[in-house]
Amino acid sequence: MENQPKLLSGFQDFLPDRMIVRSQLVETITNEYKKFGYLPQETPALEYAELLLGKYGEDEKLIYEFTDKGERHVAMRYDLTVPLGRIIQMYGNELAFPYRRYQIGNVWRADRPGKGRYREFVQIDADIIGDDSVVSDTETLLTILNTMSALNIDVTLRINSRQILNALTKTCNLSSKEGIGILRSIDKFDKIGWEGVARELSSLDYSNQVIATVKQYLDIQGTPKEVLAGLRSLLSPSETLENDLARLNETLDLLTSAGIDASKVTVDPSIARGLDYYTGLIFETVFNPDPNFGSICSGGRYDRLIKYPSGEFAPAIGMSIGLDRLFSAMSTTGLLPEPHSPIQAFIVNFDKTLLPTYFSVAQKLRAEGISTIINPNTNKIAKQLKNASDRDIPFTIIIGPDETKNNNAVVKNMTTGEQISL
Amino acid sequence: MENQPKLLSGFQDFLPDRMIVRSQLVETITNEYKKFGYLPQETPALEYAELLLGKYGEDEKLIYEFTDKGERHVAMRYDLTVPLGRIIQMYGNELAFPYRRYQIGNVWRADRPGKGRYREFVQIDADIIGDDSVVSDTETLLTILNTMSALNIDVTLRINSRQILNALTKTCNLSSKEGIGILRSIDKFDKIGWEGVARELSSLDYSNQVIATVKQYLDIQGTPKEVLAGLRSLLSPSETLENDLARLNETLDLLTSAGIDASKVTVDPSIARGLDYYTGLIFETVFNPDPNFGSICSGGRYDRLIKYPSGEFAPAIGMSIGLDRLFSAMSTTGLLPEPHSPIQAFIVNFDKTLLPTYFSVAQKLRAEGISTIINPNTNKIAKQLKNASDRDIPFTIIIGPDETKNNNAVVKNMTTGEQISL
Repeated sequence: MENQPKLLSGFQDFLPDRMIVRSQLVETITNEYKKFGYLPQETPALEYAELLLGKYGEDEKLIYEFTDKGERHVAMRYDLTVPLGRIIQMYGNELAFPYRRYQIGNVWRADRPGKGRYREFVQIDADIIGDDSVVSDTETLLTILNTMSALNIDVTLRINSRQILNALTKTCNLSSKEGIGILRSIDKFDKIGWEGVARELSSLDYSNQVIATVKQYLDIQGTPKEVLAGLRSLLSPSETLENDLARLNETLDLLTSAGIDASKVTVDPSIARGLDYYTGLIFETVFNPDPNFGSICSGGRYDRLIKYPSGEFAPAIGMSIGLDRLFSAMSTTGLLPEPHSPIQAFIVNFDKTLLPTYFSVAQKLRAEGISTIINPNTNKIAKQLKNASDRDIPFTIIIGPDETKNNNAVVKNMTTGEQISL
Repeated sequence: MENQPKLLSGFQDFLPDRMIVRSQLVETITNEYKKFGYLPQETPALEYAELLLGKYGEDEKLIYEFTDKGERHVAMRYDLTVPLGRIIQMYGNELAFPYRRYQIGNVWRADRPGKGRYREFVQIDADIIGDDSVVSDTETLLTILNTMSALNIDVTLRINSRQILNALTKTCNLSSKEGIGILRSIDKFDKIGWEGVARELSSLDYSNQVIATVKQYLDIQGTPKEVLAGLRSLLSPSETLENDLARLNETLDLLTSAGIDASKVTVDPSIARGLDYYTGLIFETVFNPDPNFGSICSGGRYDRLIKYPSGEFAPAIGMSIGLDRLFSAMSTTGLLPEPHSPIQAFIVNFDKTLLPTYFSVAQKLRAEGISTIINPNTNKIAKQLKNASDRDIPFTIIIGPDETKNNNAVVKNMTTGEQISL
């Protein structure tokens, strides 16, 4: 077995059973995206490395990069947002704004492989570029909620805003730079709890007064309206904050107008999202069948990352579903749909001389949209039927010498065993 | 503009208009594949380089290869056949044979970019592994013919067989190694004509007698049956050849049984297919709207390339459609379907206070499967309607203060200008 080929660690093969289910998920997701008017877009797997470098902070070391045979320094796509930025900057003059696009694509990260974490994985992103209104904020959240509902997945949306976090920093009398440590610690609240956050803040030399304020901040709980009221009373007032709280409030009201159950959305001050580029609404999802699984769909508003061809910033909001994480979450909680065989009919092969009949019948079935295979070998009939049954093919078509003589066919339902003569 | 980002040469971006049409092609193609019982499969973009090296002859220099951060020598997928071989060898014991699979995937080749030739392009392959019968040969050709018909493309299949070419070599009294030059020259017959082939054969020091035999061989023309008869009379008889001609004959008969018009298929002795691994039936397609475009779908039988886990060879036949070549061929001949906007309804935005109504209506439309966008801005109504019309959105929904008072909505058909009140 010296030549036994291997799969690279952190990469995946998809045999038909998994691939069929995976394709069903992709179809369900993109169908929902399409209903919101997101249009498909695609970009290459390879980019000039300079496009990616300097965009991902310390995660930059995870980029697959190399020098190609033309001495170009190239990199494999690390996410779908940076290429989206390139698209807007290069082709913005040909696009109608607001530009709603979705993209399904592999991304590559040389990360340590783990449960639900791969080096090659599919992201399914939806973004609205060129609009900074509450309409796009609400549409984005609705897209997530409708998509999860179409997948039959119970999630809770946790939303917050970068403006609220900025107001917390100001309330602590810190500059935004000085406040970064607070945001990073808050981001870990889910994992390390208040004890952990307090320990971390104190090790970062934040004052007791700052730590006390952060505690008050994280203690704010209740219905979305109660949380907004709590934030308004804790945080130093400013027009920016007031506008932001009003905007969040309007977003919540519009979700209600759209028929969303109030229990599906929480305002959660502990949501901070690591990425520096967010400027407004930020959100994550709780996967309720296994709340510790981590967010399967996240995103936010980023108004100062993407540029029009003119060089001006294009306001933007977007979200991303990690298909492989989603698959993993659904798989461990038994929520994946059963793969059903896409092959519907199996034509039993009695004898080589009957092949013309089998081909004629197969083409007729296919013309009706019925997925049909002709068994290529003339094994014993029982063995052929077992083969069809092993493949979960629902119908076998039996045309032997007798049937040919009488110009008919027997269709056998492999689930019920029922046979009908046609 | 010092920071204007660039696309790598030989790579493509797909903005929505092209992407929508491209997705339609993929859907049409895979729908036909599915009707033949091909199941979906996927493999990674990256493989251990050793899997690919030594498989592509002198084209090996086109492989994108590099050393990753874990010091592994890796390569980007060059085709979908070598990964298929890895799948069969690694997972053969879990698969039901004959295994019919299709795979859609990008492949990467550091080739000189040209018309319809890219460094990243999508192949859509369908293969049957584990069967060496005429059934699989016929099914493969039918899959192509049905797929092209579903795409509304007029093609002619040109078929030949590696056994016939082997018989030609033997008829010339040459070993298979000595005959390689003949096969390579014949492969260029389409481009360089008989003059070119003769010149090339003579520069390769083949005898006048050999050149005369090759001329007789390439002169064989006519209906498929006439060509088979011509080959039978020219080539040195052998059991292998006799079986092969009988098999081709049966394949043609079965295509007729399946209702294929005889004019769609020619037996063409000049088809040689460069790849060394073919062992039986080989085929190409003529794209009739532009016969010089070159083959858009090709393949053949290769019974000694892929191995079962046991190490035994798995007989196989398959074909590949180059999506980007197909797109290019259809585009230059005006055969691409028109991209139609997938967005069906545009809700005009009169006023921020009406947003709750708009969101409620939008969700109802989406629940009916209607792709709907709410215009986020409150520009002048005429401007909003122009925006909808520029995007080819067929219906606008007008709910202003009057309509709200009367609890109705006006739906305007943007093509006919017709308005109805609901």
